[in-house]
Parts: sequence; C-alpha cells; structure tokens
Amino acid sequence: MKLKVKIFYFSAGRPVAILNEDFAKKATIHVDSRISIEKNKKKTIAVVDIARKFLKGDEIVVSIEIAKELNLKENDLVEVRVAPRPESIGYIMKKLKGKEIDKNEIKKIIEDIVKNALTEAEIAYFVSAVYTKGMSFKEIEDMTNAIVNSGKKLNFKNKVVVDKHSIGGVPGRTTPIIVAICGAAGLIMPKTSSRAITSASGTADAMEVLCKVDFSLEEIKKIISKTNACIVWGGSLNLAPADDKIIQVERLIDLDPEPQLLASIISKKLAVGAKDVVIDIPYGKYTKVNYEHAKELEKKFIKLGKDLKIKIVCSLKEIKEPLGNGIGPSLEIQDVITVLKREDSCHKLEDRAIEISAIILELVGKVKKGNGKKLALEILNSGKAWKKFKEIVKAQKGNAERKIKKAKFSKNFVAEKNSILVEINTKALNYISRLAGCPLDKNSGIYLYKHLNQKVKKGEKMLTIYSETKEELKEAIEYYNKIEPMILK
Amino acid sequence: MKLKVKIFYFSAGRPVAILNEDFAKKATIHVDSRISIEKNKKKTIAVVDIARKFLKGDEIVVSIEIAKELNLKENDLVEVRVAPRPESIGYIMKKLKGKEIDKNEIKKIIEDIVKNALTEAEIAYFVSAVYTKGMSFKEIEDMTNAIVNSGKKLNFKNKVVVDKHSIGGVPGRTTPIIVAICGAAGLIMPKTSSRAITSASGTADAMEVLCKVDFSLEEIKKIISKTNACIVWGGSLNLAPADDKIIQVERLIDLDPEPQLLASIISKKLAVGAKDVVIDIPYGKYTKVNYEHAKELEKKFIKLGKDLKIKIVCSLKEIKEPLGNGIGPSLEIQDVITVLKREDSCHKLEDRAIEISAIILELVGKVKKGNGKKLALEILNSGKAWKKFKEIVKAQKGNAERKIKKAKFSKNFVAEKNSILVEINTKALNYISRLAGCPLDKNSGIYLYKHLNQKVKKGEKMLTIYSETKEELKEAIEYYNKIEPMILK
Repeated sequence: MKLKVKIFYFSAGRPVAILNEDFAKKATIHVDSRISIEKNKKKTIAVVDIARKFLKGDEIVVSIEIAKELNLKENDLVEVRVAPRPESIGYIMKKLKGKEIDKNEIKKIIEDIVKNALTEAEIAYFVSAVYTKGMSFKEIEDMTNAIVNSGKKLNFKNKVVVDKHSIGGVPGRTTPIIVAICGAAGLIMPKTSSRAITSASGTADAMEVLCKVDFSLEEIKKIISKTNACIVWGGSLNLAPADDKIIQVERLIDLDPEPQLLASIISKKLAVGAKDVVIDIPYGKYTKVNYEHAKELEKKFIKLGKDLKIKIVCSLKEIKEPLGNGIGPSLEIQDVITVLKREDSCHKLEDRAIEISAIILELVGKVKKGNGKKLALEILNSGKAWKKFKEIVKAQKGNAERKIKKAKFSKNFVAEKNSILVEINTKALNYISRLAGCPLDKNSGIYLYKHLNQKVKKGEKMLTIYSETKEELKEAIEYYNKIEPMILK
Repeated sequence: MKLKVKIFYFSAGRPVAILNEDFAKKATIHVDSRISIEKNKKKTIAVVDIARKFLKGDEIVVSIEIAKELNLKENDLVEVRVAPRPESIGYIMKKLKGKEIDKNEIKKIIEDIVKNALTEAEIAYFVSAVYTKGMSFKEIEDMTNAIVNSGKKLNFKNKVVVDKHSIGGVPGRTTPIIVAICGAAGLIMPKTSSRAITSASGTADAMEVLCKVDFSLEEIKKIISKTNACIVWGGSLNLAPADDKIIQVERLIDLDPEPQLLASIISKKLAVGAKDVVIDIPYGKYTKVNYEHAKELEKKFIKLGKDLKIKIVCSLKEIKEPLGNGIGPSLEIQDVITVLKREDSCHKLEDRAIEISAIILELVGKVKKGNGKKLALEILNSGKAWKKFKEIVKAQKGNAERKIKKAKFSKNFVAEKNSILVEINTKALNYISRLAGCPLDKNSGIYLYKHLNQKVKKGEKMLTIYSETKEELKEAIEYYNKIEPMILK
C-alpha cells in the first residue's frame, strides 16, 4: 500500500515508523511488527509504533534515520508492506541449540542485521548463542567474510596499507602516536577506532577533543590522500556495519564473545584494505585477558590471518597500570601530545607506541628486523611525528594545539603515609572515571601523579578526579574510597 | 530536573520518552539511555528517544503507556533523572556464564523487568541464559516466587479455587468447556489465558470472538462473584507481569526455556490463588513434547508443586490430531459451542475436556475417585455447563449466541483417491492457519471434515482454508501444497 511520508525529527536508536491505529488494525499490523518501506527501489525495514489521533490513515511517520536512508522528503509516497519474519531467526535458534551454522546461514543473519530486519532483542539472542556455544574456526571465518561483505570497503590499490588494533582495557592512547609515526614514515594507515565500550575513553572519544572523528568514506579518502593517515570513528562509515550493530547490543551488558571479537577486529582490517596488521594484546591482573588467554588469542589471530590472507603479528605485553598519566578523553589525548611534542614524562606510553610502530615498520620492510625501534624513535625525536599528527588533526577539521579545558569540579587524593605504590587497580580507575562522567564528558576522568613502584610521601598528591557535575564527582569519590585502587605498602 | 509533560498518543511496545536534543546533550543523555520519570511518588523507567525541532528544552513527550501508569495529564511537571545501569545486568551476565544465581539476584532481575529497567534486548540475554544454562530447582522456585510477588494476586479466602493449564501446541479449546463444567459444579475457576504464541489461536483469542477478554483485576473479581468463573486474557492483569514481558521477548524467536515455562505456569496459578491444579500435557509426533519429555515435566511439576504448596496433577495424553474440527479463533470457539450445546461431533474435544474436568472434580473431593467423568458428563448433558458458559460470556460483556462470521475467502481441498487418513501434520496445519491470518484475523483458519483413521472417497472434501485476504490465502495454499499435511494411504 502507498502511504504519505511525514518526517519526524526524532532518533530512536532503531528505525521506527509510526502508523495510524485504525489503518494498522485493518492491515493487521501491530506494535513491534516489521514493515518494509520502499521508494525508488531503495528499501528498508522498520519497527512499527502505533499512533492515535495525530496521524491520518494514509500517512506514515518515519524517523530521520529512515528519511536519510531512503532520501525521503515530506509528503513523498512510499510503498509499505508487512515484512515477513526473517528466516535468519531460525538460524539464530539453531546456533542457540548449539549446532554449527553454515556460510549461507551466517550470511543471512549478518545481512538481516544490516538491513534492520532483526531487532535488538533478536541480535541479543544471536550474541548469546555465540557467547554460550562458541564458534568453530570455519564459522568465525564465514562470519568475518559476511561482515566485510555486508559493508563498504576502502581500496588503496598498490600502496602499503597497515593497521593496528588493541584488545584494550588499558587507559592510555598509543594509537594516535603510532599512526603519526607510521604516517610520517610514508605508510597508509586508515585507522578507524571505536568509542569507549567499558573503558573511560576510546581512541575516537579522545581524538574528538581535538577534531572531528565522524566522516563519510569519501571524506576519509580525501584526508588520507593528503596526509597518508587518519584517526576516525569507525561507527558511521558503513565499513562492517553489521559489526557496529552487534557491538551496540553487546554493549548493553558488556558482553564480548571471543568469536565475535575475532571476526569484528579482522573484518575491520579487511574492510580498510590493510594487509599488515599488529594486534596489541595487553595481559595482566586488571586487563581484559590473562597470559594464557593472550597466547590462545595470538594463535587464533595468526590462523585466521593466514586463512583470510592478511599478515598478522600479535604483540603480547604485561600491563600493570595505565600507560600514561591521564584516564578519560581529554586527559589521555593530553598525554599523547606530551609524547609527540617531546615534552617529558609518560614513558610507558611512549615505549609501547614505539614498540608497536617498530613491529609495523619491520613488517612492511621499511627497515631491517631489529631496527624498527630506532627508526620509530628517530621519527618521534625529529618532530616529524608531531608534524604528521598536526596535519591529520587539521585534515580532520581540528587543531592539535587547541587549548584543552579542565573539568569544573575536582578532588585531590594524597598518600596517608610514606610508602611505595605497589599496585594500581586499573579496572577500578576506569570505573571511577566512568562514574565521574567519562566518556561523554570529555574533561572528566583521573590524572595520576604517581606510577607503580614509585615512592610516595605522606601528604603527597597521588591523583586528581575530575568531573563536570558535583553529583558524579561525589559518586566517583565514594567508589574510590570503597575500593582504594592505589595500593601502598 | 523538572520537565513539562506532553502526552503523545502512540504506543511503542516499550515505554518511550522523547527529549529535546539540546537538552539531552547538556544532560549527557543519549538515545536508548534510561531515565526515571516521577510524579506524586509514582515512578517508572523509560527508554529515551531524542527529538529535534518540535520539542522545547523543558518538555518531555511520553507514550500513553507511561501517561497511564503515572496518571499524567498534559503540562504536568515530572521529575526526570538519569537511571543508573541496573545491577541486575550483572546477575544476567553471571547466569550467562553458567553460574547459579541466588534468590535476591533473581528477585532483582524480575523486579527490574517489571519496572522497565531492562530493555527487550537485555531480557533476551536473560532468556538465552536460562535456555542455554538451565536452572536448578532452587532457582526455578526462587524465580516462581519472584514472579508471583512482582504482581498483584487474587484471593478468594476460604473458597475452593481450581485451575488448569495446557502445555499446548494442539488446536482445540478444552478450557472453556472445563471452566463451564467446573463453574457449574460450584468451584471457583479464575481462568486467565494467553493469546496465541506459535499456534493459530490461544484461548483468549478464541473467547474474544464472543466477548471481551481484557479486564482489570477488580472487574474480574466482580465477574467471578456473579458466575464463579471467568475466561480472560492474562496479559493486562498485572498478575505475574514479569512473566508477560518475558513471554513477549521469547515470542520473538519462539524460544521457551523449560525453567521459564515451569515458573511461568506455576506463578500464574499461585497468583490467582489456585490450590488444586491440573496440567494437561499432550505428547506425540506433532506436539510440543514427546513422551519422555512429558514424563520428565510431570516429575518436575509435582516436585515444584510440593515445594510451593500447591496440589498438582499432570494428565499426559498422546495427541495425534486437532481435538476439534476447527483451527483458528472463530472456528475453535464454534467447536466449543457445539460441545456445550450437545449438538454433535467433536468427540475428541469433548472427551479430553471431560477427562480433565473429572480430575479436577475428584481432586477437590466433589466426587469420589473414579466418578469424576460421570459427574462431568452429567453436568454437560444437563445443559448446566452451557448455561454457565452463557453466564460467563454475558458477564464478560458478550453473547455466547452471537452469530459467528465466516472469512471472506476460502478454498476447499478434496481427496485425490479413495483411501484412509493415516496421519495429520498438526504443526503444519497450525502454520498454515497462521499464514492464512490467524490469530489476528479471527475468522481465518482451517476446518477439518475428516479425522484420523477415517475413510475418504476420491473427490470428498477433507478441509477448507479460510482467510480474510486473497494474498494470505494464496500463501497458505502454497504452503499446504508443498507440505501435504493430510497423509492418505
């Protein structure tokens, strides 16, 4: 049936269309039904809400997401049909029962996720199935390919394209430093990053303090043609869009099943056309994985890389504390600038960025094996990395020398005795930063004055918690006092 | 913060509130955040949508669900706060990891479901966890109690309150016949029924052909005080509301984990105050469970009944075909009337209704063991059951003698040879009825002229498919021809 479009400037996190109640009754469409909306051969699927009164029978209200996707204008006529229950639901059920699903079944699930034929709850069933039943290598490879093929791709022809990924969980942004070094060395590095999931800041959140991170694929190509590299948010690019939606649902309860993690990371690398990739796997007491798990992940990454024709090196490193001084978007990007400008401190952050840059430089043959660190440090010390970073930030419509504000409220914590800082509960610091407002409030977070194994004197400042509101600061302080994440001996 | 209410006559299947974009940004609230909305000490939680343009900064649009719940009028001021991530998410995660959750953790999950603090996707994670990891008896009991205590309860003091439940999957409504017999025998039977989940018609869908099924708890008390019994939809009563929401999410992918099934059934019985309950467990090739599974369920029901202080008898019976002639709301209620009016045919439906009524009558001591069937049949034959049914329908604002319409379109299927009907694929008939428009189109469905082991002559009518639209009829016919659910030999 043809309905007249009313565009409604609201955003519902899922594509919603509102229909008139009497019309819906006649068409036996009810709340949460799925309908397909078509215009000029472009088609999308929306979830139905029902409205009384304010809508006529031949009208349909669509959210801006849908209007954008189908290029709709007010009063356009669209073809609306009831969308059948997607067959992929049967495959999700199959996986929940613990059976292996084949290439075509995985493809169908991923396609239905991309075209909104599956609701968030249905995607949650899929995530649960993958989490509780696991996936074979074959399934992970099929899922990776399905995710890559569900979206757009970047292609830099004969150029050397590199990428890196960190399994994460550790505050401290090595990525902008690595991208600056590799870009300055002439490599193409189209780095797409995520926003924070469980941490205080993702690389995208931190970069956003200085510049835009939200670009179209066309814009990114232009940025890279100017500067070799970029550091952008991957979420709106339509590179591996299925993965973005799955992560959105995982985020609800902080679930991160390993098969999905592997497919997610590798699909993003394939989508940007990277052939040489380093995976940074921090392990330790407060990181996402322990040593045994890190070794296992390494094995899986290397096997998947081989099968999917992409050179992968994993860099395992025990991490016991935040790499820099800051935790939170502004405070972490401030550390990055400090390193790039060669201004002192943050040695752990610098060391780790150099280590990973070195692996990349050696992997693509820019330098002989064993000489990577030397070259990376040269690029840093020469100021070329800082110059490259400024170029990238400028190309992303920002300014690397922009003044970074402090949050409105803060609270210092001092040592209560002369002692040594023997342990830092990084997970708790992350959580405290989130209570303080991270990642949405850019300037909130924690600044550390002391690092592991350093001596502290009674009354000496150990850290400051920053927040934009008194309430959040109070909550953060309460949790800090309860957990005591800085352990002195 | 205080915001001014704008009521928006739409229904989103979940409680949605729309906030102004700039306001939301300042308050760091984003799409899919949860907020609490409070007025006169009543509080609810809503999921946030963000609107541009049409909404002022100090305004909040709420759906009718929320307006009803909080008793809101246009321009009322409400207190709005960001709702923290519910701690029950941690317990869902725990269960997904396969760990046992304790009484308080289950209680928290159920409470958060009831107050909308968990989204559909989060409930899907819980359902998946229960499905893939199972639950101990202790957990099932704790969940049952949590579900009962999350809602309202009926209480008929010293009266004898009975109930029945069918594990379902078989077309044919025994419930209205059983309720009429038991009601006529002077028992209190506050029967709450579901709408169809995977079948062509639930008891509530079928009753709705004759009368209202959607009442408040107060109204039900009045109906029962007049007639001893009712047959209403359980979904809007706030008896075990957590269960209703869980079922809504299960329905998305037709998942029905056993621990949830047990807790769901028993909690509903406890909530209506029933002390003597029969569980009808049909088994066979095309039913929900096979014999072994039915025996297992019986054991579990009896143990749970004992622990939760409710007398439960399970009635296992092999069922190989629809109990009556009709499949679909109107066609099934027509069979019920035929039996109650003693008008012929539908012998299997009558037999099964008498069997279950007999168990109830014996269980409460209305008659000696062994004499239940005789009494049930007497009540039927005397016309008292039909009289009681008419009373109930009238009390539910309907008319049991209302003329039941036929659907607009139909198609007959005839036998292609002289033979015997040796098998009926009941599952396929159910699915065909749904394709034809059941349960939303009341008059759609299937009418069977032939039953198992009957002779059919070439050209003789076997069944008719009814539908309100040509398209649906076509789909139903196509599927019928593909599957051939009536097997002749």
